[in-house]
Parts: sequence; C-alpha cells; structure tokens
Amino acid sequence: MRVSELFTKTSKNVPADETSRNAQLLIQAGYIYKEMAGVYTFLPLGKKVLDNIVQIIREEMDGVGGNELSMTALQQKDVWEASGRWDDKVIDVWFKTKLASGTELGLAPTHEEPLTALMKTFISSYKDLPVYPYQFQTKFRNELRSKSGLMRGREFLMKDLYSFSKDIGEHNEFYDKISAAYDRVYARLGIGDITYKTFASGGSFSKYSHEFQTLSPVGEDTVYVHEAKKLAINEEVYTDEVLTDLGITKGELVEKKAVEVGNIFTLGTKFSDTLDLKYTGEDGSEKSVFMGSYGIGPSRLMGLLAEHFADEKGLVWPEAVAPAKVYLATIEKPSEDGKVSDIANNIYEELTRANIGVLYDDRGVRPGEKFADADLLGIPYRVVISDKTVASDRIEVKARTAQEAEYLTRQELMQKLGIPT
Amino acid sequence: MRVSELFTKTSKNVPADETSRNAQLLIQAGYIYKEMAGVYTFLPLGKKVLDNIVQIIREEMDGVGGNELSMTALQQKDVWEASGRWDDKVIDVWFKTKLASGTELGLAPTHEEPLTALMKTFISSYKDLPVYPYQFQTKFRNELRSKSGLMRGREFLMKDLYSFSKDIGEHNEFYDKISAAYDRVYARLGIGDITYKTFASGGSFSKYSHEFQTLSPVGEDTVYVHEAKKLAINEEVYTDEVLTDLGITKGELVEKKAVEVGNIFTLGTKFSDTLDLKYTGEDGSEKSVFMGSYGIGPSRLMGLLAEHFADEKGLVWPEAVAPAKVYLATIEKPSEDGKVSDIANNIYEELTRANIGVLYDDRGVRPGEKFADADLLGIPYRVVISDKTVASDRIEVKARTAQEAEYLTRQELMQKLGIPT
Repeated sequence: MRVSELFTKTSKNVPADETSRNAQLLIQAGYIYKEMAGVYTFLPLGKKVLDNIVQIIREEMDGVGGNELSMTALQQKDVWEASGRWDDKVIDVWFKTKLASGTELGLAPTHEEPLTALMKTFISSYKDLPVYPYQFQTKFRNELRSKSGLMRGREFLMKDLYSFSKDIGEHNEFYDKISAAYDRVYARLGIGDITYKTFASGGSFSKYSHEFQTLSPVGEDTVYVHEAKKLAINEEVYTDEVLTDLGITKGELVEKKAVEVGNIFTLGTKFSDTLDLKYTGEDGSEKSVFMGSYGIGPSRLMGLLAEHFADEKGLVWPEAVAPAKVYLATIEKPSEDGKVSDIANNIYEELTRANIGVLYDDRGVRPGEKFADADLLGIPYRVVISDKTVASDRIEVKARTAQEAEYLTRQELMQKLGIPT
Repeated sequence: MRVSELFTKTSKNVPADETSRNAQLLIQAGYIYKEMAGVYTFLPLGKKVLDNIVQIIREEMDGVGGNELSMTALQQKDVWEASGRWDDKVIDVWFKTKLASGTELGLAPTHEEPLTALMKTFISSYKDLPVYPYQFQTKFRNELRSKSGLMRGREFLMKDLYSFSKDIGEHNEFYDKISAAYDRVYARLGIGDITYKTFASGGSFSKYSHEFQTLSPVGEDTVYVHEAKKLAINEEVYTDEVLTDLGITKGELVEKKAVEVGNIFTLGTKFSDTLDLKYTGEDGSEKSVFMGSYGIGPSRLMGLLAEHFADEKGLVWPEAVAPAKVYLATIEKPSEDGKVSDIANNIYEELTRANIGVLYDDRGVRPGEKFADADLLGIPYRVVISDKTVASDRIEVKARTAQEAEYLTRQELMQKLGIPT
C-alpha cells in the first residue's frame, strides 16, 4: 500500500488524555483512535495488526479441532438468570439495554450461558462429543476505570473457545492440548520466552486454572516465577500448600509484574447442570456434559506487543504481526530524472507479487520525516532508494532493531526478505 | 472439513417460531441459530457463507480505493447531539445503555457522526482528499418488529463506506465508480440480472439517492422496473416529475416486490458542516468536506440468497458464497474392504490441496440421509463414491441444480471442478 493512499497520518504530539504507553504510541502512529476510555476504533494499519494476531490464534485453534462460529452481543436474560449471573452484583461489568417493547437485554461480557444453551440443539448423545466451538467476538465490559489503553477495554475483541467433553478424562486430554496450542501462539507472536503458564485459582472441578502471564513492568498482576521450570504462580494462590503441590520452594521464585494474555479454565458441569445440557452415554445413562473455557484477548495482546517492544523512536512490531514487512522510502529531488521512482516502483511491484507487505512512502516530504514515520510505525525493514543508492547500484536496508543500515544488491535484498531467487 | 467434525447438525423440523423462509432453512440446515427475533448467531457453515460475501464486497471496495477500518458499537452522545440524531424521535431504533458512572451511551445504528468526528484528526488540507474509509461492522437497530430472518436484523453486519471529497465534482466521479462496484458485487453473488439500480429520494445535495433492489416476491419494497434500461423507481418517488426526469413513461414500467440490498447516498456537507470538518483549499480558503455514504448488508444478502435460490429440497448456494464447493459422500457397507473410503480420502486430499472446499460426509449413516443433507445444505456439487462407482471406475457427480447425476472419470471430475490436469 502507498502511504499517500492511507487516510491516517502520524502525529508528533503525545495524546494528553492517555497515560498508557501502548495507547499513546498507537494513537500517535495512527493505528487506533480513541472513542472514549477503553473504547478504540482500529484504523487501517491497526486493523491489519489485529487481523494478523487473530489469524495466528485461528490457525492454532483450528489445529486442535476448533469450529469457528460468531455469537451475538445482545443477550436475553433467561439463561443468565438460570446461572445466577444476570445480577449486577454477580457480574459487575454488565452493560444493559432494552428492546423497544421494554424487555431488558444485556451486552455479552462472555458467552458460557448462551453457548451452553445453543449446544442443547446439537448435543444429545456420546457420539456428538467432544466438540470445540470458538469465536472472535466483541465483548462489552462496563469497567469502572479503563486507563490501560488496549490492555483493558470496555469494548474489545476476545477469542473464546469452549470445550464440551464426555468426562473429565477426555477434558483433561484437551486441556493439555490447548495449553500447548497457547504456547505456540505466544511463541509465534515473539513473546514465548517471557510468557509463563501460571497457576491460578480453580473451581469446584479442578484445584487450579491456568493463566498465561507475560512478564512486563506495566502488568497489573503479580506473579512468582520459576524460571528453570518455566512456570509461575499467581499471587492469589501463592501459599505453602501450592508450593508443596508443585514441589518448589519460595527461594526458587522471583516476584514479577505481568500481563495476563490468556486463561484456560475447567468449568466442569457447572453450566451444563444449570442449563440442562445432558447426553446419553454409551451405556444408555444420562450424564452432564463436562465443559472448559479458554480465552485470549487479541486486542489486549496488540496493546502488550506495542508496549513491550517499543523503544524511544516508536513501535517495534514482531514480523508476524507487523502491518507490513517493509517500509519502502524514496529520497528524490524534484530535479532528478525519475530513476529513483522507477526503481522503487519496480521493487514495490516485485515485493507485492511475492506477497510481502510493503508500505511505500511515495510522498514528497523530507527524508527525515519518512525515516521518523518508518520508526514510529515500527515496520521491521526500512528500504531506501536514493540517487546515492542508484549511483552505487546498491539498496539501503535497515532492520528496525538494527543500529546501522546495510547496502545490498537487489538480489541480496530479496534474499534477506525471504524471497527465493 | 469432515461432517463428523462439525458440531452442527441438520434438522427435519421447520422451526415453529420463524415465518420467514430464509430463517427456517438456515436454521434447519444448521447455518444460524436464533438468539431472539432479529438476532442470530452464525454457526460454522453460516459464518463461511457470510465471510465469502464479505470478501467479495471487500475486494470491490478495495478496488475503488477503500481503506478498511473497524469502528466501535459504543457511542458517546455529543456528536449525535450535534447532528440532532441522538433524540429517539429522530432515530427511532436506538439501543441506549449507560457507563458505570451513569453517562448515557448508544449502540451505533450507523456511523456518519463518529466517522466525521474521527476524520477531523486526518483531514485539514485539500492534499488529504479524497479518502474512502469503510468497515464491516455490527450495527444495532431496535426494530419494533423483526420477522424477516436475516433480512431485517436488530444486530446485523453492515458494510458502510463513506466518501470524503473536495467538492461535488470529485464526489460525483466516485459516486459513479462505486455504483459500478456495487453492480460487480451483485453480479459475483449471482443476482446481477435481478438487481436494479433504483431511484429513491435524495436530500439537500442531490435530487435522488440510489438503492439497489433485488426483485423477489418476499421483498418489503415496491419498485417500478424498466427492464430495457435496467433501472427502477422506488414507489416513494414514483411521480410524473421523476418519469419526465428519466424520460420514461408509466407504460414501460412493471410493478415488482423487491429487497433493498444496497444504497448509495450523497450526504453533501450536512455532517461536515454540523461537526466542523473543514479543509483548506488550494486557494487558501476554508471549505466544508463533501461527503457520501454507501451501504451493503452482508447478512441481509445472505438471507436473500438463501431465500431466492432455495427449492423444495433446501438451500441452493451460488458457488461464490457456498461454504464448500463439493459435498463428498461415501456409500459403504461395513462388510466392505475399505476401497470406497480409500478412494474418497484420496479425492478429499486432492481437492483440499487444490483449495477446493469440501464437506466430506464420512458418517456411518444411510445414503438417503447423506443425500438429503447435501441438498438441504445447498452445496453446488455432490460427489458420491460407492462400491458401484468403484466397480465401474467412474465417480458419480451431480450439480445441486441438475436433475440427473453424471458418471465421470477422475480426470473428468477434476476438470469439471476447475482443477487443471
């Protein structure tokens, strides 16, 4: 895409009403726009980053047998009353609204109840199990405060998968499988090494649930990390009993701040009992379906990646999520013969044909402005074509994370960008 | 995808609480699930159809210079008060809600106001124009009645593009360009021949707006069609004056029922004046940005396609939107040697490698049940492997719209499905 065709622009001004670094940078770079605290529009480049994160999660969910659907925000209260969660004291982040007829509705903060009710249409026999529906869907949570940019939204994107199994044995097998899929998601996003599977409080059906916590000074959570075992304990369950369970001692743990980037939870038969989701077993007896829930927030992840990798010049996206791999900039005096543009156009076309995302800065602005934008936008490679590079028959390329530029032949450049020659 | 891995099932029962044929069929086939009137969950196969429709629209919007973004449902009232549309008497389909602090919010029924406000960040000079932001986004409309299935939703998907131009000349150029893009969308969806660009009431800045109306007996609108000129007039502007404008006579027109599947509208400076979206012209003077809006409802289109093409056996999807191109079914007695499955597995893999979507019915159910499902689901080609086809070294293939099956060699089958051999 040509920068001249993008309707967004970067800004030099740090937004005065944002205290979080991720929102400040993402707004300055033109990735998001603040509608109100915790409610952000995704502008074209921001939407690309979010889509890239979504696609990585989708591939891993499909890989463990997930079936993607898309549920609704509007919710009738009956199923939520049945589970006891319609009450604003039980779920204290409800947004509620009303039909024209006066009937009260809610905006879904999560989807256990409506999905359990829906699955009654499709589950009746052991032959129908196990199944793993999931979705990427907008959640609404009426948070009292929302000052962390994309890290805590009032309207935000969530991947929520729910497992429906015959029994705890079948459930546990899937629980381990999706836990490994979560690890692959974080590794692909470039935060595998700082993301820890973390023991957190469980429920009636399992002693623990698990969070995935990414270590970061800006995190709202406190965790105790065992680096050698690559696990952590959330402070809410940091007790002698848990240490004994895990066979570790306080001395081996380091206290860290962290951001919760996912959680997996054994629900057991809590919702299936309440909402009467039963199946007939192979032996003819009626049993409750055994459930689990598994969440990842793609928009929160985007906020974390923005904040975690940023440097003093701006964003630094991991290649897997960057809105483009290459920022292609020309430096050309109006008096020149157009050779610079010709070469740049040609490289733009070759990269586009090879499915390499390019932001082509063809604007007639100062080189310094182009370089500052390339840095603020956090594109992995900056490629520059100028009269100097043309004269030397080389192309200037600089990785966003490198100190110095390199001067490569065209073939070397294409190799560096992963195009087979 | 294997049918055994889908969590949805077809049903023989027509849902008692649906009067619209599209909702009845889509629910029976397991494409959608009714949460409440006008509010439907998209199940895996339904999501695929919707995604296919979205992708066709996206390609055509990108083709005319569209920049995709994603705005929010939650809306603060200030910009809507400025335009006079916060009032429930002016927009009578608002869903309203409240922040925990008590501040009133709305759920966006459309996005002219917030987008106009957003564009103030990015438009200040004639150099910033024209631009064409668009989105696929969930709209909320508190309709008093909602009995038409996907054709009139309370929560539904909308593609809305907005044009920001320097003046009416630049606007008109784009208006014609996107009108042609709309024609391409309907042609690709298989309803080009029955979809008419229709004159409807305009506003202060243009005498007419245009709707795209698809002729259908279930339509809520009445239009007067001029078949030779491939245009129509909405009954709201069916006057002698309009006939004179268009140079046609009543005798040339036929009255028809139709479904509105898109509309394009010249907004002029109505919103930019109200919300102070100005730019500095080349001559240094300050001017109001000239706007237009362009909507298509992908979920309504899905309802229309379902209803329009259906026959007594079920859905009949156009190939461009079908959730799979091929329904592959095996007929195999348990006593057999597995040859049928081997061949079917092999064909499944070849088609999948060639990026042809396949629903592979590998269930151990009666052939009649498989055939009924293939018909109800509306998959374009049904391919059957049985002991008979194996013995004759042919494969049975039947188009959903054909009366008779054909018996082809494997190479002929692949050619028929568009795979180069």
